[in-house]
Amino acid sequence: MKVSVLGAAGYTGGELLRLVHTHPELDLVQAVSRRYAGRPVAEVHPNLHHLGLTFQPPQELSPVDTAFLALPSGASAEVEAGVGEVAGTIVDLSPDFRAGASSASGETYRTGLPELYGDDLPGAARISVPGCMATAAVLALAPLRRAGLVAGDAVVDARTGSSGSGAEPGPASHHAERGQAFRVYRPTGHRHETEIAAHTGVRARMTVTAVPAVRGVQVICHVTPPEPVTRRDVLRVLQHAYRDRPFVRVVARSRGVHRLPDPQFLSGTNFTDVGCAVDEDGRRIVVVAALDNLVKGAAGGGVQSLNVARGLPEQTGLEFPGLHPA
Amino acid sequence: MKVSVLGAAGYTGGELLRLVHTHPELDLVQAVSRRYAGRPVAEVHPNLHHLGLTFQPPQELSPVDTAFLALPSGASAEVEAGVGEVAGTIVDLSPDFRAGASSASGETYRTGLPELYGDDLPGAARISVPGCMATAAVLALAPLRRAGLVAGDAVVDARTGSSGSGAEPGPASHHAERGQAFRVYRPTGHRHETEIAAHTGVRARMTVTAVPAVRGVQVICHVTPPEPVTRRDVLRVLQHAYRDRPFVRVVARSRGVHRLPDPQFLSGTNFTDVGCAVDEDGRRIVVVAALDNLVKGAAGGGVQSLNVARGLPEQTGLEFPGLHPA
Amino acid sequence: MKVSVLGAAGYTGGELLRLVHTHPELDLVQAVSRRYAGRPVAEVHPNLHHLGLTFQPPQELSPVDTAFLALPSGASAEVEAGVGEVAGTIVDLSPDFRAGASSASGETYRTGLPELYGDDLPGAARISVPGCMATAAVLALAPLRRAGLVAGDAVVDARTGSSGSGAEPGPASHHAERGQAFRVYRPTGHRHETEIAAHTGVRARMTVTAVPAVRGVQVICHVTPPEPVTRRDVLRVLQHAYRDRPFVRVVARSRGVHRLPDPQFLSGTNFTDVGCAVDEDGRRIVVVAALDNLVKGAAGGGVQSLNVARGLPEQTGLEFPGLHPA
Amino acid sequence: MKVSVLGAAGYTGGELLRLVHTHPELDLVQAVSRRYAGRPVAEVHPNLHHLGLTFQPPQELSPVDTAFLALPSGASAEVEAGVGEVAGTIVDLSPDFRAGASSASGETYRTGLPELYGDDLPGAARISVPGCMATAAVLALAPLRRAGLVAGDAVVDARTGSSGSGAEPGPASHHAERGQAFRVYRPTGHRHETEIAAHTGVRARMTVTAVPAVRGVQVICHVTPPEPVTRRDVLRVLQHAYRDRPFVRVVARSRGVHRLPDPQFLSGTNFTDVGCAVDEDGRRIVVVAALDNLVKGAAGGGVQSLNVARGLPEQTGLEFPGLHPA
Repeated sequence: MKVSVLGAAGYTGGELLRLVHTHPELDLVQAVSRRYAGRPVAEVHPNLHHLGLTFQPPQELSPVDTAFLALPSGASAEVEAGVGEVAGTIVDLSPDFRAGASSASGETYRTGLPELYGDDLPGAARISVPGCMATAAVLALAPLRRAGLVAGDAVVDARTGSSGSGAEPGPASHHAERGQAFRVYRPTGHRHETEIAAHTGVRARMTVTAVPAVRGVQVICHVTPPEPVTRRDVLRVLQHAYRDRPFVRVVARSRGVHRLPDPQFLSGTNFTDVGCAVDEDGRRIVVVAALDNLVKGAAGGGVQSLNVARGLPEQTGLEFPGLHPA
Repeated sequence: MKVSVLGAAGYTGGELLRLVHTHPELDLVQAVSRRYAGRPVAEVHPNLHHLGLTFQPPQELSPVDTAFLALPSGASAEVEAGVGEVAGTIVDLSPDFRAGASSASGETYRTGLPELYGDDLPGAARISVPGCMATAAVLALAPLRRAGLVAGDAVVDARTGSSGSGAEPGPASHHAERGQAFRVYRPTGHRHETEIAAHTGVRARMTVTAVPAVRGVQVICHVTPPEPVTRRDVLRVLQHAYRDRPFVRVVARSRGVHRLPDPQFLSGTNFTDVGCAVDEDGRRIVVVAALDNLVKGAAGGGVQSLNVARGLPEQTGLEFPGLHPA
Repeated sequence: MKVSVLGAAGYTGGELLRLVHTHPELDLVQAVSRRYAGRPVAEVHPNLHHLGLTFQPPQELSPVDTAFLALPSGASAEVEAGVGEVAGTIVDLSPDFRAGASSASGETYRTGLPELYGDDLPGAARISVPGCMATAAVLALAPLRRAGLVAGDAVVDARTGSSGSGAEPGPASHHAERGQAFRVYRPTGHRHETEIAAHTGVRARMTVTAVPAVRGVQVICHVTPPEPVTRRDVLRVLQHAYRDRPFVRVVARSRGVHRLPDPQFLSGTNFTDVGCAVDEDGRRIVVVAALDNLVKGAAGGGVQSLNVARGLPEQTGLEFPGLHPA
Repeated sequence: MKVSVLGAAGYTGGELLRLVHTHPELDLVQAVSRRYAGRPVAEVHPNLHHLGLTFQPPQELSPVDTAFLALPSGASAEVEAGVGEVAGTIVDLSPDFRAGASSASGETYRTGLPELYGDDLPGAARISVPGCMATAAVLALAPLRRAGLVAGDAVVDARTGSSGSGAEPGPASHHAERGQAFRVYRPTGHRHETEIAAHTGVRARMTVTAVPAVRGVQVICHVTPPEPVTRRDVLRVLQHAYRDRPFVRVVARSRGVHRLPDPQFLSGTNFTDVGCAVDEDGRRIVVVAALDNLVKGAAGGGVQSLNVARGLPEQTGLEFPGLHPA
């Protein structure tokens, strides 16, 4: 299956190149970048040095089966129609077509979250991958909501590494300011609240902190249940919800130092780890979810969704298990 | 004023040595450590190399005006009576005498938090400094509670650096496991909840994460007000509460990248920075507070309290403003 | 091919589990750990959660084709004979059989460095993988030495992450001390000097610094050539030496920010990246080499050597290309 | 003594504001910044929040005793003459007047390194502070050179945090690229080689690596002595050289984990720590030096030099001892 990656010099674009390269059914035709056209991919993505790739200009798109769009907000909507002429399928990682936003071309985008929308995806020609923090929060909250364990709003404390804001330098990403930061840059009103509500029905009151990490998203969801519950109740709900889902691991150990989901072990993987705890009085559920924003929260979610759309085994090309220590 | 520091080889002990050294009214008589007795202080605290100090054994305590106890939980209660024989005043940094716990000797401990208990401290001979995360949460929540802005429980998301668990190595502090960790090690049931309730009357539902930092505590307090409020309302409450308090800075900027309290700028200082935001519908208040757990949350809080107890200017010896960049 | 891993709870042991799992020709029979026998592997290596493995006690070794020994210094020599009874092949990652040290059993160990000893490995039944810093320095220096570019001793400045000293906690690895450290813990006399001399004939004067990283080794080799040379000369030597070696990449870019080998992009991979520069007067060659100490410097080097020993394609099971950003 | 700081929004400018504020003999008249004129200093330097300062435009310089220039390369030379009209003394932190470069105004600049040039400084009206890596290397090498212990060139391996390249964002300082970097960005030909030669007579062959730190410079100087020496010989030379110098500490412990200079303990301080080791055969001396590039390597060096120039005790305003843990 021939694919191209637009926005290949960005971080999610680089992850797509990496994943496509190791995917046995995908064949990279073009790594497209306006800014870096003609230059070696390795100059930007040194991990891919041995592949010997060169960025291609966007003016000369080859016909492909699937085009991945790893473009900034707004840019996907702009190029969508043109890309649609050379690519049967579009997998978009931007916010442009998420949560019911309609495409410029009038095409209907399916949500690239197989854990919730697996039945919608087979045969899909337009797929939009949800936001990284939204993905984590949705996978944490959806099973609880379905099980009737969510009364009222949820408080969602989200922490994000620096790669989430992309490859473009600026004052907020300057290392001397960002290296040790615990910067509550969006205490209220984050746009992923809308996506969470759309996918779970839960009003999430988010607070987002930029933390000293490059990759990784971790969300702590504080949920009030209608009646007191036990940790065991919640665990059973999560385990049941994800019993057949290869990329969601329920992690809630009672021993060792790594008892709840920690993004440090998820870099490069397509997993979302989900775990939980409950206050002694049973009146607050704490659900912790973690993922790699560039993989499960973007490129990997896209490849996983394409696998499902094309009837391939869902895990194809996404087997990297992550590292310990990290 | 002659002082000694017991537990001087620990992290809060080292901070006491540093602060006492630069304090114009305090004169260090002994840096006491059982384990390191006879060895140079610089072997443990390399920053103090130029002071040429040596650790003293606990068997030979000299008479002093004030003894600082920087000992592990349980050890303060054990030595308290003996220390009381050579020291008129005891400032304790351990949990042993906090939040109403009575001392073995029957002495009454005042709470070493001048922002709330400034009137109790003058003349005090026994002072117990509250826990570091409790201090941050209390300074965030107390003014709101007094202003009637807290309905129901608060969710307190706390992040802590590794120095908070002391100088003793173990599996949880091993660098290869801890270096990149976002480890939710106490999702519920942290003991500081009790202290917060005792000092503010608010039931705090805490979740504590060990984060990739050495120093620093940051708490995000999610509070539901009885009626919708604005950010301006909350800001006014905080500014009023701390208008005369030299060590609490209300930080809520509208420009720049550092708009809310970030512990990275507080290392070595006695400040608590406090800021806030409010959801658009006015139904959730987010208060962010940050401090250095070893200073304001321990050694600095102790020195500040002693200053107040002895009628010295509150800021004496605590002037270091912190670094930028950090 | 059935394999077992002894010392599976350590860091190189965990990497072996990861690599064996994804290796199409290797089948894990036992993950052996004395200390953790009976406990889930995921408690120690959370990245392997989904594999559902349990540690086995060393008392009950099953017969296997190959046993990997990921044991501390001294322990391999101790168990070698016993393991030899159940395993046809032993791949040892410890220092016990390196650089000509003879085994307790009298068996001859081949050096697990296919780039230098590829011809010795086919059919080998005993393989000893060189030290991680030695591997990096040897791959940097050997081609220069062979090309006659090394006059006199070399200065080797080595930097190492914390995982290199293993999973056992202690004062040197305590996060609060190690997190920001640039600790020159072995300014002279590192034991890898012997290995470098044995494999290249160059007297390396090493200085080793523990740096703020978990994985990764980087060496800067300062070499005096007998006659002035150019960067181009040196580059040609390196490129020629490694033109057919899949795991050594010559990285010496003239553009971008990542021009020379940086271990941050090698985590999890079996690559050694090698690059160079030359002083304007041609009288000093600087060769930079980087690798992941747990992979190419240990577990991956072992798997690669076993691949060569068994006539499998050298890269089998070692395809992970690393991440960018990291 | 009235002072102003030009370039006050930069990192060395911010350090000057901090140091001037706590200096008992200096009184800040203006914090000047072209870009941020009219905005609160705390927006840029959040540590100085409580000072309530505002940046002033460069068009309205008030008369002062001393102007500190914390400007980018080239800018000092441009404004020098104008500043000279309102300030009797200029202390410059840029490269513009270093190592014998003559000023535009024809004024003679003294070198702001009291450890070497203490006799030149009293009464000086123009002072130029050397580069941060040069300062570290010079303090490491000068005593050895004077003692006849340096034969031939020295290899200088320098590591630097990100604050050394200033507050201006760019691709090289983007957090996702820089956060975990060991980037050998200047393997040869660094301009500080010239300064080192000028101040010590030693040809330093430098290799500079950008490392995962914000503050801090560490240099490892590899020196070949004319005859074999012992560590004791070298230590004696260093101790003698710095016996009366308050800001150079000879650190060479035989116990504990912190035996040689580590920049992590020097953040915010004006110290340079210097230590050494010698190969067993006595034929290589390793000297390690560390400092905070923004303090001893810039702002603090400037204040120290001004103290000497004005006959104040050298340590005035520079007493902060640094933190442990860091």
